[in-house]
Amino acid sequence: MDHEIFQLGNVVLQHGATLRDAHLAYKTYGKLNADKSNVIVYPTWYSGQHTDNEWLIGKGMALDPDHYFIIVPNMLGNGLSSSPSNTPEPYNLSRFPSVTLYDNVMLQHRLVTEKFGITKIKLVVGWSMGAQQTNQWGCLFPDMVERIAPFCGSAKTAPHNFVFLEGVRVALSADAAWNNGWYSTPPSKGLRAVGRVYAGWGLSQPFYMQELWRELGFSSLEDFLIGFWEGFFLRRDANNLLAMLWTWQHGDISDNPVYKGDFKKALGAIKAKAVVMPGEMDLYFPVVDNEREVKHMPNAVCVPIPGVWGHFAGGGANPVDTAFIDKQIKQLLNS
Amino acid sequence: MDHEIFQLGNVVLQHGATLRDAHLAYKTYGKLNADKSNVIVYPTWYSGQHTDNEWLIGKGMALDPDHYFIIVPNMLGNGLSSSPSNTPEPYNLSRFPSVTLYDNVMLQHRLVTEKFGITKIKLVVGWSMGAQQTNQWGCLFPDMVERIAPFCGSAKTAPHNFVFLEGVRVALSADAAWNNGWYSTPPSKGLRAVGRVYAGWGLSQPFYMQELWRELGFSSLEDFLIGFWEGFFLRRDANNLLAMLWTWQHGDISDNPVYKGDFKKALGAIKAKAVVMPGEMDLYFPVVDNEREVKHMPNAVCVPIPGVWGHFAGGGANPVDTAFIDKQIKQLLNS
Repeated sequence: MDHEIFQLGNVVLQHGATLRDAHLAYKTYGKLNADKSNVIVYPTWYSGQHTDNEWLIGKGMALDPDHYFIIVPNMLGNGLSSSPSNTPEPYNLSRFPSVTLYDNVMLQHRLVTEKFGITKIKLVVGWSMGAQQTNQWGCLFPDMVERIAPFCGSAKTAPHNFVFLEGVRVALSADAAWNNGWYSTPPSKGLRAVGRVYAGWGLSQPFYMQELWRELGFSSLEDFLIGFWEGFFLRRDANNLLAMLWTWQHGDISDNPVYKGDFKKALGAIKAKAVVMPGEMDLYFPVVDNEREVKHMPNAVCVPIPGVWGHFAGGGANPVDTAFIDKQIKQLLNS
Repeated sequence: MDHEIFQLGNVVLQHGATLRDAHLAYKTYGKLNADKSNVIVYPTWYSGQHTDNEWLIGKGMALDPDHYFIIVPNMLGNGLSSSPSNTPEPYNLSRFPSVTLYDNVMLQHRLVTEKFGITKIKLVVGWSMGAQQTNQWGCLFPDMVERIAPFCGSAKTAPHNFVFLEGVRVALSADAAWNNGWYSTPPSKGLRAVGRVYAGWGLSQPFYMQELWRELGFSSLEDFLIGFWEGFFLRRDANNLLAMLWTWQHGDISDNPVYKGDFKKALGAIKAKAVVMPGEMDLYFPVVDNEREVKHMPNAVCVPIPGVWGHFAGGGANPVDTAFIDKQIKQLLNS
């Protein structure tokens, strides 16, 4: 096992269910310094695990383990932290309870404080749903979080984004083998369908026009659709995907006991110095949504990632985009 | 029956199959004048039928039946012209042959010439796949077609558009009830899934943000997803949808014996005065694709339809967009 487990005990979730013997899987990179002033928190994204975040961590990069203590907590539902696939009966499979952004961040806060005794976080950073958790950190713990760098994500899931995810959800559930979650073998036809539905959303129109999948080593469009997209989702558990999808569809940093749905108030509470980086051609977290949010954040700028990689500008697959993000985070850390 | 049938006999299609006793369903509006100089051809779109084109036809509008003789030919596969659902065994259901844009337009040309003895067409106009047929008309019959007004469509289906349609296709085929097309009762779960997948693509991000489905009489987002999108596709036959989807995915006005894949040559052959109208926020026929095409068309301008209705800017649902399109066509007809 290349990660650690933080036992949470019995956790009462925002929507009322109790997740018994819950746990967070996490990995740390670098060393916590004596005054605990070098902490970076870097949550995972939809279906990603801590290893999928490592492309942005490295010697000489902004997230340099020689300088910083980087904690990557796995999101609930991702198969490593408590998830439908690893929770014992009776809360396994389809009975896994609804989990919110708020739940995720409150539990990550317990990890950071109870396990490590940390009181200040230099930076919270994340891609996509990781960006949503980043924003949630910023408004729930404004006196603790000094900087945030959410990229290709938002503080609130837009209705169109919700609708896109409906397409993902029904493509999976149209497969009878899914059986409302009570499958014994994976619903592979549905998982492959999810891959093809997702393929059009994850990248931009010009990405496909320019055949940039060639840069990822695929030999044809069909090879990309099978090799990348179908393969990507075949490796995932269907109930886990649906659990995280619910979290995403209901993503709203103000939908919690602290902000009670007052979205502008939640945005306004993010005191952290913030660099918000949408992908210029992201089809489901469009630039305009971040621009709208940033207006209500007291210390934030919106800096789009140029280019045609769409949502995957923040996925670590394109070196140019990675360099852009890394540079922005370096500037933010030095400010 | 509110339409006419033109018997085509046995038709050898571009890809080699023979469609026996094929027919085109069509409807005409207005009267053909003595010198047959007032003809408009207005092909249908993906799953649409002639009645679905009528919003752009009317007294005082550009397509005024008091002045013009408007022929609306139904596309092959749409359930009225020869289609999987109405072709006798053995070419019914999954055995319905692959049909191209070229096939559609060559057969429409037979209708126009053999049935009506028409030699000049004042205007060909159409939405979406109807726009693709419009462009195909322009390059196959440059001496016959005087003007074209394709809106929210292209002359060649872009790779990203192909991928979006893959999502539609697999959402349908993930339903075991589809049974590779050999269903006896409609695969309703798959058809509903198609509706939800399509919902995100058909309209734009700000359309959903602004809740413009209210203008269509829906009471909530979910009401729109069920009442509009699921209902839309539940009314369609699955094999028909897949037949037209194949036509769309392979849409290319140069992929035929005349142009042999030389796309620029095909575009260059469109002598017609052309007003090409993409929807400003169309997610699968983006403006940039039309701008690229128009550069190679000798007598064309690209005039985006402003606003946030995405692909459905050309669907006749938004009066502002309809007025825009109508005005452009009026100017074109008077030029």
